[in-house]
Order: sequence, then C-alpha cells, then structure tokens
Amino acid sequence: MNLAELEKGQSIGTREIPVTRADLVRYAGASGDLNPIHWNERFARAVGLPGVIAHGMFTMGAAVQLVVDWAGDPGAILDYQTRFTKPVPVPDAEGAGSPETGGSVVTVSGKIAALDAEASTVRVDLAVTAPDEAGKDQKVLVKAQAVVRL
Amino acid sequence: MNLAELEKGQSIGTREIPVTRADLVRYAGASGDLNPIHWNERFARAVGLPGVIAHGMFTMGAAVQLVVDWAGDPGAILDYQTRFTKPVPVPDAEGAGSPETGGSVVTVSGKIAALDAEASTVRVDLAVTAPDEAGKDQKVLVKAQAVVRL
Repeated sequence: MNLAELEKGQSIGTREIPVTRADLVRYAGASGDLNPIHWNERFARAVGLPGVIAHGMFTMGAAVQLVVDWAGDPGAILDYQTRFTKPVPVPDAEGAGSPETGGSVVTVSGKIAALDAEASTVRVDLAVTAPDEAGKDQKVLVKAQAVVRL
Repeated sequence: MNLAELEKGQSIGTREIPVTRADLVRYAGASGDLNPIHWNERFARAVGLPGVIAHGMFTMGAAVQLVVDWAGDPGAILDYQTRFTKPVPVPDAEGAGSPETGGSVVTVSGKIAALDAEASTVRVDLAVTAPDEAGKDQKVLVKAQAVVRL
C-alpha cells in the first residue's frame, strides 16, 4: 500500500462482527476479566445495565481487526485509542428450545482521516455501532482512531 | 510419607470445595469447553438439566487436589480415573440485588484403599458428593481412584 494512492476521506471498508455470549465467556477467561456483568443477566440488571454487555476491550479489539486486515500486519498499528460511550448489550438466544445463538452485531467502518507523508503513516478513524436494548443503533465507541504505518 | 505408616482404610482427610458460576466461566475459557450448559441457565434447562452444571473435568480436577496436597507433589499422582455419575448443579445467586456468589459445594474425602509395598504406591479412593437441585447430597463421581507414588 502506497501513501500516494490514499486520500483523506477514503473508506477502508465496513464489517459486521457478530458477538455472542459464548464469545464473552471465552473473552472473560482469556482476559481474566470475570466481571459478572459480562455473563450473568441477573447481576447485570441488578447493577442497572440492560442485560449482559460485552467487555469494552472486546469491542475495541474486535473493531480494530478491520484496520489490521486492511494494513495486512498487526504490527503496523502504531497507536490505537478510543472512548467507550455506550454498552453493547448481548442478548441471550430466545425460547426454551432454541440453540445457543442470540447475541448482537457490532458494525465497524473505517476511513482515512489524516495522512502523514513524512512519517509514512495514516490515521484511520472508525465508526463503531451496535443496537441498544431497543434495537436502535448507537455509537458504542467514539474517537476510535488507529495510526497505521505504511 | 512412609508406606509402613499407612494402612488400608485410613483417611487422608476431607475437603469442601465451593464452586461458583464465576469458576465455571473461568474454567470454560481455560479448558476451551464452551458448552453453554456450563454457563447458560436457559440452555441448560432446555436440554433437560436442572440448570447450569459444572464441567465434569472441573469436578474431577478439583477433587484430586485433596490427594495432591496429601502427597505433597502433583507428580506423585501416577494414575487417576473416575466415572461421572451425577451432574453438579451450580445455582446462580438469588435476588436481584445480591452479590455474585451462589454456587455449590463439592465435598471430597479420601481414604487409603490399597497399598503396594513393592511398587511403593498406594491407591486413594475418593468419595465425592454435591447437592442435587433439591439440596440432597449425591455421589457425583464414582470409582474416583488415584494411584500415588510414595
């Protein structure tokens, strides 16, 4: 990829990332973050959440994969930061006999927000949304910005 | 520990092992066994279980710790086998405001079942029980036998 071929405002693509409770259980074990808000509906509601929510770092990590794949190398991501604005509720599947699916879908799209020819880097800004408990899409990360070395 | 000091029928002790859903989430991640029967109440009931149950291998592993501590060395366990007879239901905590505790208690006791002076080994048989969904203690492992090198 050549900096000269890129321009500000250019899209690097869009991706839909399914998130299930099984993903959160796996992430809880991998991260060591066993906070029950990420796997226990009763507990999550008791502390005022709409239900089980994804780990913020899970969402952040899942979202940047779009940039990693675009850059072709995880090591090319020099900097990545974001603010967590809204939770990502991850509903259970419904119905007593239904298989274990349910879940949510996080939608990520990225665009070139700045180019630095001298440093040979670009900044990719991500728009990251997921449905809230009423099904309305919300920005779940803001100022999600990755600096990529070309 | 000296084989001559041990005799058949002798107790190596008893232990109560608390098991919570957080333990199962941790174990799911560590083992890679993400079967929802170990963390999803709805799913567990849908497949005919009394609720979320512990991983059999979790119970088996937790139970043998009594023998490991008695032997003083995990490497001294030469052989360990069991049959899984009853599930270990692990209830959620109760009440909307309650902290994330709940859970079950597995009770393990061990006794010397056989001595082999020539091989310098003993066989420890474990009795492993846990309350069923009605609160009645059940044998959850049978023929749980560990061969220990002295």
